[in-house]
Amino acid sequence: MAKIKPGKNASKKDVITQKAAALFKAKGFSSASMRELAEAVGVEAPSLYNHIGSKSEILQAICFKVANAFTQYLDTTENSAGRPVIMLENIIRFHIRMMLNDFNEVYVANHEWKHLKEPYLSNFLIQRRGYEKRLIGIVENGILAKEFKAINPYVAVLTILSAVRGLEFWQQHKKNISSQVLEDDMVDHLLKGITK
Amino acid sequence: MAKIKPGKNASKKDVITQKAAALFKAKGFSSASMRELAEAVGVEAPSLYNHIGSKSEILQAICFKVANAFTQYLDTTENSAGRPVIMLENIIRFHIRMMLNDFNEVYVANHEWKHLKEPYLSNFLIQRRGYEKRLIGIVENGILAKEFKAINPYVAVLTILSAVRGLEFWQQHKKNISSQVLEDDMVDHLLKGITK
Repeated sequence: MAKIKPGKNASKKDVITQKAAALFKAKGFSSASMRELAEAVGVEAPSLYNHIGSKSEILQAICFKVANAFTQYLDTTENSAGRPVIMLENIIRFHIRMMLNDFNEVYVANHEWKHLKEPYLSNFLIQRRGYEKRLIGIVENGILAKEFKAINPYVAVLTILSAVRGLEFWQQHKKNISSQVLEDDMVDHLLKGITK
Repeated sequence: MAKIKPGKNASKKDVITQKAAALFKAKGFSSASMRELAEAVGVEAPSLYNHIGSKSEILQAICFKVANAFTQYLDTTENSAGRPVIMLENIIRFHIRMMLNDFNEVYVANHEWKHLKEPYLSNFLIQRRGYEKRLIGIVENGILAKEFKAINPYVAVLTILSAVRGLEFWQQHKKNISSQVLEDDMVDHLLKGITK
């Protein structure tokens, strides 16, 4: 079999992570084997272990890559000190783009995180809860600034995060709708509603 | 062990279905055993088979109970021939109430349907696709009636169904928010948005 050939912009570990995300999504983390991953990457299993220690380590890499991408985007957004409504719009757009562009990895982080081992499992959940709290804070600031209605901020954040997460069903059916229409319509729906 | 004792309003089969939904949700359909179900119901396993033929039959009962409840509500709503915006509001409220009141069964229908056997699997998917198409039709009628903006109806229905489905995360965390606030805020969010 061939050696692992990364593309111009992907390291060998990136190639393994991407193939593993596709495999874990298709079969579930528990059912997927290192042998199948080696096949998907196109190398012998022992060669995989030159790049990664274990199946658990790959799951950690995927889950924290996704969690860190969201946290870093939120850091940047909060530092921009823009209006809450603009911050929230940008964050929703980022979620939609992550679902469209890094679907396998986001799917695995959303569904398979429960197979993380400690202390990674706790770290992941703490990071996710912190993320949700900061989103709730943005909505609260928007209510104070009278940019948002006096809604329950938790319900609003749950509605938004659930709606963007639901793009996994869109991904599975691949309707003939451009990414831009999808993004713009969903953002408009979640911020301004659909009634005239 | 005791005989199956249904409450005033539940048949023996209802009791089994409810216990099975809780079990399938907690362990997954594949991992749950008839022995565990008998334990949950509080009877010996052979006694279960007086009421239900197999584990698959219980999954069918749960999935079609949920699917039929949604379809019947949609039938009634469409027959009411109300304004599309009112029809959609009522349907969103029904989804939220189903998630709050029949959570285990809705969760199993949402997550475990893939374990249905043919022809039930195909029937279930046809019924679900038909349901989505009819919701899209209501949004299309609302756009024609100028009650809704000129949005992509598929994206709007995906956003709404994903948001209400996301109540499964709320169910798991049980925030201190009343059902009425949750329902009213989510309906308002999905129809009118959160911006002032």
